[in-house]
Amino acid sequence: MLRIASLLALGSLAQAAAPALMPLPQKVELAAGKLAIDASFTVSGAAPCAARLESAIERFRARISRQTGIPFSPGNAKPTLLVECNASGPDYPTLGEDESYTLDVTPQGAHLRAETVDGALHGLETFAQLIEPGTGGFQVPVIHIEDRPRFPWRGLLLDVARHWMPVAVVKRNLDAMAAVKLNVFHWHLSDDQGFRVESRRFPHLQELGSDGLYYTQAEIRDVVAYARDRGIRVLPEFDMPGHVTSWLVGYPELASATGPYEIGRHFGQFEGAMDPTREETYEFLDSFLGEITPLFPDPFFHIGGDEVDGNQWNQSAAIQTFAREHHLDGTLGIQTYFNRRVQAILEKYGKTMVGWDEILHDGLAPGTVIQSWRGQAALGDSVSQGYRGVLSWGYYLDRLRPARYHYAVDPLGGAASQLKPEEASRILGGEACMWGELVDAENVDSRIWPRAAAIAERLWSSADVTDVDSMYERLEVLSRRLEWTGVKHRANYEPMLDRLSGDRPDESLKVLAGASEALGLGPQKVDHSTTATPLNHFVDAVRPESESVRLLEQAAARVTARRPVPAADLKLLREQFTRWAENDARFQKLADSNELLAELKPLSKDLAELGTIGLRALDSLARGVPPPQSWVAGQMKELARIQKPDADVVLAAARPVRKLVEGLAKGKR
Amino acid sequence: MLRIASLLALGSLAQAAAPALMPLPQKVELAAGKLAIDASFTVSGAAPCAARLESAIERFRARISRQTGIPFSPGNAKPTLLVECNASGPDYPTLGEDESYTLDVTPQGAHLRAETVDGALHGLETFAQLIEPGTGGFQVPVIHIEDRPRFPWRGLLLDVARHWMPVAVVKRNLDAMAAVKLNVFHWHLSDDQGFRVESRRFPHLQELGSDGLYYTQAEIRDVVAYARDRGIRVLPEFDMPGHVTSWLVGYPELASATGPYEIGRHFGQFEGAMDPTREETYEFLDSFLGEITPLFPDPFFHIGGDEVDGNQWNQSAAIQTFAREHHLDGTLGIQTYFNRRVQAILEKYGKTMVGWDEILHDGLAPGTVIQSWRGQAALGDSVSQGYRGVLSWGYYLDRLRPARYHYAVDPLGGAASQLKPEEASRILGGEACMWGELVDAENVDSRIWPRAAAIAERLWSSADVTDVDSMYERLEVLSRRLEWTGVKHRANYEPMLDRLSGDRPDESLKVLAGASEALGLGPQKVDHSTTATPLNHFVDAVRPESESVRLLEQAAARVTARRPVPAADLKLLREQFTRWAENDARFQKLADSNELLAELKPLSKDLAELGTIGLRALDSLARGVPPPQSWVAGQMKELARIQKPDADVVLAAARPVRKLVEGLAKGKR
Repeated sequence: MLRIASLLALGSLAQAAAPALMPLPQKVELAAGKLAIDASFTVSGAAPCAARLESAIERFRARISRQTGIPFSPGNAKPTLLVECNASGPDYPTLGEDESYTLDVTPQGAHLRAETVDGALHGLETFAQLIEPGTGGFQVPVIHIEDRPRFPWRGLLLDVARHWMPVAVVKRNLDAMAAVKLNVFHWHLSDDQGFRVESRRFPHLQELGSDGLYYTQAEIRDVVAYARDRGIRVLPEFDMPGHVTSWLVGYPELASATGPYEIGRHFGQFEGAMDPTREETYEFLDSFLGEITPLFPDPFFHIGGDEVDGNQWNQSAAIQTFAREHHLDGTLGIQTYFNRRVQAILEKYGKTMVGWDEILHDGLAPGTVIQSWRGQAALGDSVSQGYRGVLSWGYYLDRLRPARYHYAVDPLGGAASQLKPEEASRILGGEACMWGELVDAENVDSRIWPRAAAIAERLWSSADVTDVDSMYERLEVLSRRLEWTGVKHRANYEPMLDRLSGDRPDESLKVLAGASEALGLGPQKVDHSTTATPLNHFVDAVRPESESVRLLEQAAARVTARRPVPAADLKLLREQFTRWAENDARFQKLADSNELLAELKPLSKDLAELGTIGLRALDSLARGVPPPQSWVAGQMKELARIQKPDADVVLAAARPVRKLVEGLAKGKR
Repeated sequence: MLRIASLLALGSLAQAAAPALMPLPQKVELAAGKLAIDASFTVSGAAPCAARLESAIERFRARISRQTGIPFSPGNAKPTLLVECNASGPDYPTLGEDESYTLDVTPQGAHLRAETVDGALHGLETFAQLIEPGTGGFQVPVIHIEDRPRFPWRGLLLDVARHWMPVAVVKRNLDAMAAVKLNVFHWHLSDDQGFRVESRRFPHLQELGSDGLYYTQAEIRDVVAYARDRGIRVLPEFDMPGHVTSWLVGYPELASATGPYEIGRHFGQFEGAMDPTREETYEFLDSFLGEITPLFPDPFFHIGGDEVDGNQWNQSAAIQTFAREHHLDGTLGIQTYFNRRVQAILEKYGKTMVGWDEILHDGLAPGTVIQSWRGQAALGDSVSQGYRGVLSWGYYLDRLRPARYHYAVDPLGGAASQLKPEEASRILGGEACMWGELVDAENVDSRIWPRAAAIAERLWSSADVTDVDSMYERLEVLSRRLEWTGVKHRANYEPMLDRLSGDRPDESLKVLAGASEALGLGPQKVDHSTTATPLNHFVDAVRPESESVRLLEQAAARVTARRPVPAADLKLLREQFTRWAENDARFQKLADSNELLAELKPLSKDLAELGTIGLRALDSLARGVPPPQSWVAGQMKELARIQKPDADVVLAAARPVRKLVEGLAKGKR
């Protein structure tokens, strides 16, 4: 049997043989032979089978039916795939439960064993990833897999406050989370720009704070059940005492300064903060949390606590007096007082408090979980003070960094690598964060997937699984597979581009889009400043990371490094550079009399220039004559200019060209 | 102002100016100027506004929000688009009601007027088709449109019996129907392969006859309401007395021969037929129709009546005795007896009977509607005997003929053009038919759309709207616009191809798919013989018609006809032929060890040969030397071979190559 480590070492030649699993299991032993997946394939749970597993098997059957096009029959007593798990495991996914599974596939059948339903769910996802077409139709290789997660807390935060995300969006992302074995759905339910949950005790919260865009309590219960069925805990977040403008519209008496308040329409930090000195604030929260906490069976409850603007507190004489009387030291002291009060309420309702870095302070209850957006050092502070920690720094998907960036961030890396084992053991895992400023229901999937899968692998697989090329190869396969789970990161891409050209699509726009990468939150040229601004620009459609450019970068690296120059790489580069060079004429015509495309005219011109530079570099390579230093210097300067963002995207296409020019300059030819 | 006729005459140069409307309205006057569609755009109904229009406006807002990416606000008293209609029109769409509308757009606003809600719905669809990006963002041209349908019955039949179609599939197709102003959803609900409706009086119908795949009565009501809201009548069909095997599984006593019966798994004609001689049959049908007819508010009810296999009747002594006693002449006589009995029951429940050609016989109630699958002559027979008629011959989408084929079929054309005006006036319209042998929920949309829109235009627009090039140009735009309504004819295409190569997609498969066209029901090489056979082959993904090949055909026609040879066309052809010629090497590698692709190896080889022939023809053209006759003859023979179907597809790519070789041979150079 071949171990997966050696399979990876074989590289792309072995690609056809090595199954593209993600996250990579802890132990994989591959052997010769295949199990056929045809219309006779059945799957059943071994009796006694938990109801949650039964419904998961039903869904699994439908999913692989989509994935293979084969209509499968219901299970039977002697199924092809037998799923066995200890039915006495928890009915709701539980932090720290045994999520391990073992999968054995022979040409005659497959056997999946797990201690809990959640372990079995993970094993089913692995099995689905093993299905591939082969000489006998669809098949699964003969294999032995033993697997378990490295961290018990593997989350995805979805901000539904800044832009509204309908239930369908949440559900399809829960399906995709399950596919990569993420097990915590962190639901950011309120912020300055919206309060997204129906409260019956305080109906003005949603009536005045949501523009009518909120989840009913029935919908919340439905989503929680949907997540539970997929082995995912739901962690609700109601951010307080800052980020609460949407609460204050209906209940201005909660605020530290006189209202009235309006729903936040812009982004950034808002002044509105709850008044931590009035007992009525806590009475409100007690009543509110008493109503809301039963909707969420998870024992953890997130109170946010980040980015409290101290202005209102500083400017209130009453609050300042209160702070002096209670020996509260500045904004942080006041917030800690507030946190302790809220924590006491949460304890009453059986909840363990979770909050962002800012809540860290002496005197919190011991089990408190601190979520770090500030980094591994802050995370280390939390766990060395005895609390538990979850890392989100380095996992902010809204920054639209490449997958490799997130992949390199380890919850136990950086400053956290200096921790004592006992401290490190309190680091529970991490959470990818999808903040909602620049995403809506249409493009949010493309900002989460497939990059979140790289984070999922970091949190599940061994710490030594760090081969970036292998990650990208498997990520690309996974990205397509995720389509069968229902997320629309790929499906919505071309329609969004077509919309820009008014349904008279033109290849030149697609060429430009494929050469570009969208930039995340930061200084913007395209107006995206309010929640009502349409997300229908080029940047909103373009992918955060261009896989086709990554392949060109690899080709460029090879042609500068290997002799003889690999002909296939040369051909690929020449074709692509020619396409870029010729693209602009057609694009400029398309962009005339089209405002949404007009902002891309300089970008398109730059792409043509990249094509031209690339072609000249290839010519030089072909002739075997290094280009003059002055030419190289000139091109490098031009490349530096081109690599600056425009229309909130960058021309990723510059990277392979740069690699080529640099390679030539170093005389590596 | 420019009339649309002259706009069309301007051809592709005017394309950017002429709005791509489909179906083409009766009268269009375009003027200079634009109405901006931005975040300030609002739409409201003029008071008093029917509830059905209110909800349509709400949906319209959401739809154009998807189409433009702009989040719109609810309407107000002074909206950008004012919709005015006579609120006293029917609440359920009614055959023959006034569906006309008038639309006026100025730079300041738009005004839509209609007599009925259904007319207003059509006008909203036209407005949505007018939206395009421009120099000021999205906009609508200043325009005056007067419009009304040519025929009052414009339908789409969906067969949900042979392959199950979930409610979501039905709904998204209803949305697409509304987008092209089709107004009859013909729901083929039972056949040998499945009984798809819940009956409470006779639960064995769905329990034993559907494999659990049926609509509950609540779902039926929901779909009917959904269609009604979109101006679409629902015409249910329960096929009888033949095509009833699925009924007989649970109720074998209905049959003309002793059972037991099993759900049909193959296609084609089945023997099982209801016993028309037993009173119990009519008691059953009376009770069944008494339960089912109230689910469908439409006054028409379809009893099928096609393709009754006479075997069971001929072999039953009792039935033959009955026939003699009642002077029933053969199978047709017996069926007519049955039809009259059923018609009497339907009359009791307030329904007008509709049936296929075969029900045509003396003595049916005068209002009976005959749906013709046999042709315009059969249609003429029906209306000349005083019945009403609907044409479906020529509109069978499952045959996967090109849009131009269906477009050329006119309900008043062929033999029907000889009818007296009074007879012709009884031809109500037509119905596109999507029979279910070779489609499932995944690929059915791509077999309906966009081709059904060509039929929709035939049934809506003037008889003299027959320009095929204009139709195809607008069809391509519409095809993309339909994505915003939710159908998945485009979205499911690439994932289905990717699945064939196991999520390791390769461009070579896409090149082959783009050069191919799927064949419809007929002699098959790929096994699709049962309802359980997966529809996951190449043919199931490939489009029925290749738009890219159509453009190549046009280019080939131009390069052989025009002097100087158009350079852009030459370049397009050369690039494409080169791609085809080079594609095979890569494809063969991909297809190794992949059973689903292995069947395409000869096809891929032929495509490469097409590329080579095309390149030689272009060379000859470039040199200005006509090729030797012997070469032409050899290539024509080879092309004839290549154009034969393989793997149930044809290489559409052969058409432009053939055009080129023929052009050269004719010495047109």
